[in-house]
Amino acid sequence: MRDFLPPDARRLSELARRLLGSFELFGYELVTLPVFEYESVLERGLGALEPEEVLRFVEPETGEVVALRPDMTPQLARVVATRLAQAAPPIRLSYQGSVLRRRRERARRHRQIFQAGIELIGLDGPSGDLEALDVACSAARAVGLSDFVLDLGHARIAFALLEGVEPSRQRAAVEALHLKDRAELVRAAAAAGLSQRERDALGALSELHGGREVLPEAASVLAGTRAEAGLAELSRVVLEVDRRGLAPAVVVDLGETRNFAYYTGTTFQLHAHGPGVPIASGGRYDGLLGGFGRPLPAFGFAFGLDDLVWALGSDVLTEIPPRLLLTGEASALAPALRAAGLRCAVGPEQDPLAYAKLWRYTHWVSAAAGQAVVTSVPDQVEQRAPLDAASVARALAG
Amino acid sequence: MRDFLPPDARRLSELARRLLGSFELFGYELVTLPVFEYESVLERGLGALEPEEVLRFVEPETGEVVALRPDMTPQLARVVATRLAQAAPPIRLSYQGSVLRRRRERARRHRQIFQAGIELIGLDGPSGDLEALDVACSAARAVGLSDFVLDLGHARIAFALLEGVEPSRQRAAVEALHLKDRAELVRAAAAAGLSQRERDALGALSELHGGREVLPEAASVLAGTRAEAGLAELSRVVLEVDRRGLAPAVVVDLGETRNFAYYTGTTFQLHAHGPGVPIASGGRYDGLLGGFGRPLPAFGFAFGLDDLVWALGSDVLTEIPPRLLLTGEASALAPALRAAGLRCAVGPEQDPLAYAKLWRYTHWVSAAAGQAVVTSVPDQVEQRAPLDAASVARALAG
Repeated sequence: MRDFLPPDARRLSELARRLLGSFELFGYELVTLPVFEYESVLERGLGALEPEEVLRFVEPETGEVVALRPDMTPQLARVVATRLAQAAPPIRLSYQGSVLRRRRERARRHRQIFQAGIELIGLDGPSGDLEALDVACSAARAVGLSDFVLDLGHARIAFALLEGVEPSRQRAAVEALHLKDRAELVRAAAAAGLSQRERDALGALSELHGGREVLPEAASVLAGTRAEAGLAELSRVVLEVDRRGLAPAVVVDLGETRNFAYYTGTTFQLHAHGPGVPIASGGRYDGLLGGFGRPLPAFGFAFGLDDLVWALGSDVLTEIPPRLLLTGEASALAPALRAAGLRCAVGPEQDPLAYAKLWRYTHWVSAAAGQAVVTSVPDQVEQRAPLDAASVARALAG
Repeated sequence: MRDFLPPDARRLSELARRLLGSFELFGYELVTLPVFEYESVLERGLGALEPEEVLRFVEPETGEVVALRPDMTPQLARVVATRLAQAAPPIRLSYQGSVLRRRRERARRHRQIFQAGIELIGLDGPSGDLEALDVACSAARAVGLSDFVLDLGHARIAFALLEGVEPSRQRAAVEALHLKDRAELVRAAAAAGLSQRERDALGALSELHGGREVLPEAASVLAGTRAEAGLAELSRVVLEVDRRGLAPAVVVDLGETRNFAYYTGTTFQLHAHGPGVPIASGGRYDGLLGGFGRPLPAFGFAFGLDDLVWALGSDVLTEIPPRLLLTGEASALAPALRAAGLRCAVGPEQDPLAYAKLWRYTHWVSAAAGQAVVTSVPDQVEQRAPLDAASVARALAG
C-alpha cells in the first residue's frame, strides 16, 4: 500500500484518463464499482479464493465475509447478470480502480494495484478477440508507447492435451511446461497416461515460442490431437493481428500456462522495456458469466498503471503545463490569470525560488518598478512585462 | 455500496476531473492515497473512532487493525508529516477517491462516498480561509453551478463560550444549540455554570443565522465574552468574501455546531437546490497536524460528488459527444473514424437502432447502394454521404 505524491499521482491519473479515452473511441463506457465485494460474488467468478490472494473480513452487521477485490472481472460479471440483465449484447464496459493482491513473497504485505481495463461481453471467437486486441494495442499507442510486444497464447492448447488428466498429474505437467523443462514435461505426460502423439505434442509446446513462423510447425506437431481446434483459432487471430498491423511486434507462446481455469480461449500480454511484468494482460473467459446466470462469451484485459508508468519512463507525460508562483504585488493578478486558464498560486515572500523549484512551478512572477518580472524556474531567465494578466500570459507564450 | 453504470459513472468521473482541474488552477496538486489505513493513523487524526462510523478489520499478518477510511484528511496529515516532512509550506494538495461511512439509520449498511477535495496546509487565519473558500466557490462554478449558498460558521464561537465546561453538560448545550431550542439552551448554559452574559450570548447564537446583517448584532451580544476573537475573525472573512464576490449568496450561522473537536476556526458548507445535504463542506483545523508531529495550520474541504450530480440535475454534463454505431459495410470505416477522434463501435446486425438507443449511441451508420446512411438516434433523421470516414465526419458536423 503506497501513497502517490505529486507529480506521480498526476501522471497516474492522466494515464488512466488517456486509456479510458482510448477505450471510449471503441464504444466502451465507464462503470465504477465498490472497492470491496461479498466473498460469495468473487468466488462465483474466481473459483475458491486462495487465502493468500485475498484480504477478507467479516461485516459486523451481517456476518457475511467481505473481500477487497483482487480483480474487477467478477464484479463486472455480477453487474452484467443483474443490473444489466436486460441489456442487449455486445456489452462494452471499461473501468479503472485499484485491486488488492496479497503478496506471496517474503514481505507478506498487501499491494494495491491501479488498473484500467475493459470487458467485451457477447462477442465470441476471433471477431471478439481481435476487437479487444485492437483496443489494447490502440490504448498502448494512445499513451505514447510505440515499442511494445504483443504476446499471444491460447488456453485450449496445452490444457486441451491435458484434459481429463487427474489434477495432481495435470499440475505436474503444467509446472514442467511453465519451466520449459522438456524432459520433465515428457515424463509427466507419460505418467499422466497421454498417448505418444500427445506426449510429443506437449513436449514440443515447451519450445514453440516465437514469431508467426512457429505456427506451421505447431500445426504439424498438434495435428490429430485435441489441441488442434485451439491452435486453428489462435492462428486465425495471429494472422489477422499481423494483417491489420495492430502491434509493432507479435510473438506467439504455445506453452502459455497462466490461469488455466479462468481463460477459455485467446490470451495475451503486452510487454514493454522496463518493467519485468506485462503492462497489460487478458484473454477470453467464456465460462465465467454462466456462473452468474447469464452465459455469454467474454474477453477482458487490464493495464497495470504502475508498470505502464515505468515502461513510459521519463520521456512521456512529464511536460508540466505552465504553473506560476506569484509574490508581492503580482499576487493581485491571480484571478485574471486563472480566468485565462493559467495555474497559479500565491507563494511565500521568503525564498520563493526555492519554493517554486520544490513544488514544480515553472515560473515565478514578482513585481518591480511597476513591472511584472517573470522568472523561469529553474533556469532563472527573466522577462519583464506590464503588470497585468494579459501581458504576463503573453510573456509566457512568447 | 453501489455500482455506477453508464452514463452515471462517466458523469461522476467527468465531474471529478473538472473539480480537480479547477483546484489545479489554484496550484493544488493531486495525491492518491490507499483505500484503507491503520486505525492508529486514523485515530491520531480523528480522535477515538466511533465503532458505528468506521468499518475496521484485522490484518492477518500483523494483527494490526486496519480501517476503511471515513475521511481522507488524517491520511493527508500523515503524508505531510512523513514523506513531505521536508517540504516548505504552504502545501497545497488535492485528492479524489471514496471514503466509507457506516450509516446510523435503520438499514445499517455502509455507504461509499465519492469525494474530491483539497487541503491547504501552512497558511493560517483569514488569508488561508479566503484562499480555500475561493477555491471551493470557483470549483462549484467550474462544474456549472451558478446558484449556490456559501454558509459560513466558526468553531470558536459557541465552543469558546462552553470552554472548560464538563463534557456531558457541554454536549447538552451543543444539542440544544443544534436544535435551535433557545429555552433549553439557556437552561443548559445555566446548569453548566456560565455567567449571565455568557448565557445570554449562547441563547442568542441559536437565532444568529442569516445575511451579514447578523454580524453587528452578534458583536454586541458577544462583546466581552470568550467568543469575541472567533467572531472578529469570522467577520473579517465574511466581509472579504462579500467584497470579492466569491459566492452568489452568503449566509452566516453563528450557532454552527458540526465537528467541534475537529475544527478550530472558520467552517463552511456549500448548499444548492436539490440534495438535502451540503455539496461541499470543510473548515480550518489547526490542531490536527500537531498530532502527527508537524504542527501547521490547515484548512480543508471536500465536495460530495453524488450530491453534486444531484444538484446539477439534468442540465449539466449530459451532452454526449457523438458516438457512432456502425453496421455492415460501414464497419470498415471504424479505424479511420477513430483516428479522427470519433467514438464508434461495430453493432449487431439485428435491430441496431434499438441497440443504439439502449447504449446511448447518437448515430447509426449503415451503408446502402455504396453510400453511408447516417441515422441520428433516437429521432431517426437520415443523411447520406459517400462511404468514407471523412464524409461521415462532415455529415455529423454539418
